[in-house]
Amino acid sequence: MKDYKAWCFDLDGTVYRGESPIAEAVELIGWLRKEGNRVFFVTNNSALTPSRQADKLERMGIVASPEEIMTSSLATAGFLLEQHGRMDVEMIGEEGLREALEGAGHRIVTEGGEAVVVGIDRQIGYERLASACLSVSAGARFIATNGDRAFPTERGFVPGNGAFAGLIESTTGVRPTVIGKPEVHMLAEISSRHDLRKEEMILVGDNYETDIRAGLRFGIDTLHVDTGVTRTADLAGFNEQPTYQLSTLADWPF
Amino acid sequence: MKDYKAWCFDLDGTVYRGESPIAEAVELIGWLRKEGNRVFFVTNNSALTPSRQADKLERMGIVASPEEIMTSSLATAGFLLEQHGRMDVEMIGEEGLREALEGAGHRIVTEGGEAVVVGIDRQIGYERLASACLSVSAGARFIATNGDRAFPTERGFVPGNGAFAGLIESTTGVRPTVIGKPEVHMLAEISSRHDLRKEEMILVGDNYETDIRAGLRFGIDTLHVDTGVTRTADLAGFNEQPTYQLSTLADWPF
Repeated sequence: MKDYKAWCFDLDGTVYRGESPIAEAVELIGWLRKEGNRVFFVTNNSALTPSRQADKLERMGIVASPEEIMTSSLATAGFLLEQHGRMDVEMIGEEGLREALEGAGHRIVTEGGEAVVVGIDRQIGYERLASACLSVSAGARFIATNGDRAFPTERGFVPGNGAFAGLIESTTGVRPTVIGKPEVHMLAEISSRHDLRKEEMILVGDNYETDIRAGLRFGIDTLHVDTGVTRTADLAGFNEQPTYQLSTLADWPF
Repeated sequence: MKDYKAWCFDLDGTVYRGESPIAEAVELIGWLRKEGNRVFFVTNNSALTPSRQADKLERMGIVASPEEIMTSSLATAGFLLEQHGRMDVEMIGEEGLREALEGAGHRIVTEGGEAVVVGIDRQIGYERLASACLSVSAGARFIATNGDRAFPTERGFVPGNGAFAGLIESTTGVRPTVIGKPEVHMLAEISSRHDLRKEEMILVGDNYETDIRAGLRFGIDTLHVDTGVTRTADLAGFNEQPTYQLSTLADWPF
């Protein structure tokens, strides 16, 4: 097995399930740190700030610093800054998106935005969506932090921000640019922020359609683990295969 | 020209535009009433009750009684009653839908509905949508009062209830049954409520995709008028043609 310098872990289904840590992941991460590797956490979740996400990991016994957390919100803020500079942004989203946008120097506005950014927002209302549609129709840059149409809760699947971005798309006829996995923006942001070459990086995830595809598209090695969404048996149905396939992360030879 | 007994008029683009009556329509409707014809108004709008819709018409100088107004909400309530009997209904919608459902004997519930009915709701919030998705995933009958993805306001196009039904569809993977035009349910409801045969009815509308298609599908004569969405010049692009094409309703030989 290759010796990677930077391990990029997906979270839900890879490192934890809901509020419960996956023991094999916790062990591997501990060992990787002891061996002097960099560890990153790469999440489509746009709602949590890196520091709250790190707190959540700590509560499960996983040491993590906010600098190691890459969210779709951070990548969105960075993408807009790089492509357009500081912008007036109409935001549908929660604390994690607000902090990321403001941290990158963007200004949050409630109408007439130069960009409309859609993350998950459990306080969403009609007026917010209507205003976003009007701005997108008027030419605002339209971004979805990620494309997930639904996400699992203890009650079942509820609408993800991809479903709200889809609503705006169906009202306006404009497709959003998607930032989260399976797109490569978060991995690119880690690579550039931490000066890492692609051959030094590996992406670890449970979901072929988001995690593994993101790694394949970015051109880094990938490790699929059978603890979440995609079953190992189903990998054969995909054209491109991950570099490694493991039942659990205990099977990594450490 | 044939002598029709029941004239079914679309509203926006046919009888009025926004808050302004279309004079030629007002005149024709007055003449039809004087000649002893029945007049009905057939609207995808699910938000207004028949009595508020009649008030709106009266304010524009168009005499109308609530019994002459057929809304997608009334047809939805009737459809559910006919297909399933009285139901516990989770409703996304406004006054017009609530009154129609309760008037048909359905019970409005906030979760665990046997049916999920989606009309326009400008007070919509995340929790309402999440609950609707959970119920639809659990097998509730999923109905959209109409499929309109966007509707025009003085500010521009804002999300219609079809966009919200689409959000629930994309979260759950379940397609809604659509009641409003171009489906035939409202015309069928008028026909059965008022004991009218198809050859006695004519549908008058400006929008080929909703109005004219509804009439064609129901199998009644149709009159397209060039005062709204579809231009007369564009009718040639459609396979099936309306029975009559007029620039304005003043061209009807009355």
